[in-house]
Amino acid sequence: MQIETKLKEMGLELPPPGKAVANYVPAVRSSNLIFLSGHGPILKDGSLITGKVGADLTLEEGYQAARQVALVLVASLKEDIGDLDKVQRVVKLLGMVNCTPEFVDQPKVINGASDLLVDIFGAKGKHARSAIGVNALPFNIAVEIEMIVAVED
Amino acid sequence: MQIETKLKEMGLELPPPGKAVANYVPAVRSSNLIFLSGHGPILKDGSLITGKVGADLTLEEGYQAARQVALVLVASLKEDIGDLDKVQRVVKLLGMVNCTPEFVDQPKVINGASDLLVDIFGAKGKHARSAIGVNALPFNIAVEIEMIVAVED
Amino acid sequence: MQIETKLKEMGLELPPPGKAVANYVPAVRSSNLIFLSGHGPILKDGSLITGKVGADLTLEEGYQAARQVALVLVASLKEDIGDLDKVQRVVKLLGMVNCTPEFVDQPKVINGASDLLVDIFGAKGKHARSAIGVNALPFNIAVEIEMIVAVED
Repeated sequence: MQIETKLKEMGLELPPPGKAVANYVPAVRSSNLIFLSGHGPILKDGSLITGKVGADLTLEEGYQAARQVALVLVASLKEDIGDLDKVQRVVKLLGMVNCTPEFVDQPKVINGASDLLVDIFGAKGKHARSAIGVNALPFNIAVEIEMIVAVED
Repeated sequence: MQIETKLKEMGLELPPPGKAVANYVPAVRSSNLIFLSGHGPILKDGSLITGKVGADLTLEEGYQAARQVALVLVASLKEDIGDLDKVQRVVKLLGMVNCTPEFVDQPKVINGASDLLVDIFGAKGKHARSAIGVNALPFNIAVEIEMIVAVED
Repeated sequence: MQIETKLKEMGLELPPPGKAVANYVPAVRSSNLIFLSGHGPILKDGSLITGKVGADLTLEEGYQAARQVALVLVASLKEDIGDLDKVQRVVKLLGMVNCTPEFVDQPKVINGASDLLVDIFGAKGKHARSAIGVNALPFNIAVEIEMIVAVED
């Protein structure tokens, strides 16, 4: 349970994992890849970080939202695979920032997720990623991220 | 041909599959995964469901558009693998809703696709997914969805 | 080195590959799949093709931007796998066009990338893809594309 220990050392508590809502699920495994659904910045009390970066939220607030999304993704991942030490590699993120048409710092926002994943998983946390802007996200969440993770067989 | 029988029982007729246009194709297989291109809501007569949800289309119309996209995806899948009974799992959807910046019900729109896939494939149809808004889609289609499906070797 | 020879015959010089910035990397391999990060239209001198298609850029300029992105993706791919002859199949592109809400020719823009990949890799270059519009991209780049490629074991 090295990763769990790491999380404790970092003072991080995993939020509740994503829930199976309607006809989709938070994660699907195919061979050794886990495909995680798009997750949002849900806080411990169940509330969401909402608003458009560049209008309602600053860059720093966007960064914190992306960091929170990563934490929820890790919670869903743990729920799915049981033991986070099984992670071989965070393969890929698609990070979507709810923003104004003028906002151009999507990478600095999604760094909030990337930084946390590398803090938690070390070299195994280094991933390929795309960071893009979109004009609207569910419930007006600030950031949505989907993730692919390779795990031990 | 259980899935085909199911489709008949549901009164569903598959629309024409996506066509290979220019230098890309509707589906590519790699190992046991089928990666399906982004598809749109093409109706039987070849016309498209167009418009932005939240302005030109209601939520319910968006839902129906997403459902139609799923039907076209299933048609392309059948064209690629021959027999829909080979489907082991619908792994992942990325659902994009052409919408206004104020629209926040992307999940309810993409449910149109998720619901149909579970109606058709049962537990094998339960997938990971992302639902996002975008400001523009090809030909002004209301919804575009790409899909990854795991099939028997 | 057939593909390298082909590039030379086409008069194409690969631009510098994507760089590992912060906590993500240009490409991650999992089994025989290479997941490439979202790349942008970086020119040889390091400058970027920027602007929104439909406002700042014409369709043709968007096409050229997408073509340039594909060239940068191929450069990153070569950096990762060493020899481009190892490519078995370009599996999938997700092509995002920075555009106005009225722009509907995203497929014609992303053709710039698809055409180049097929010119370079022939039948192995034919891929599944999605072409979508977004309201904003990093540094205001005109086009961002992520790619999945299957390579020899």
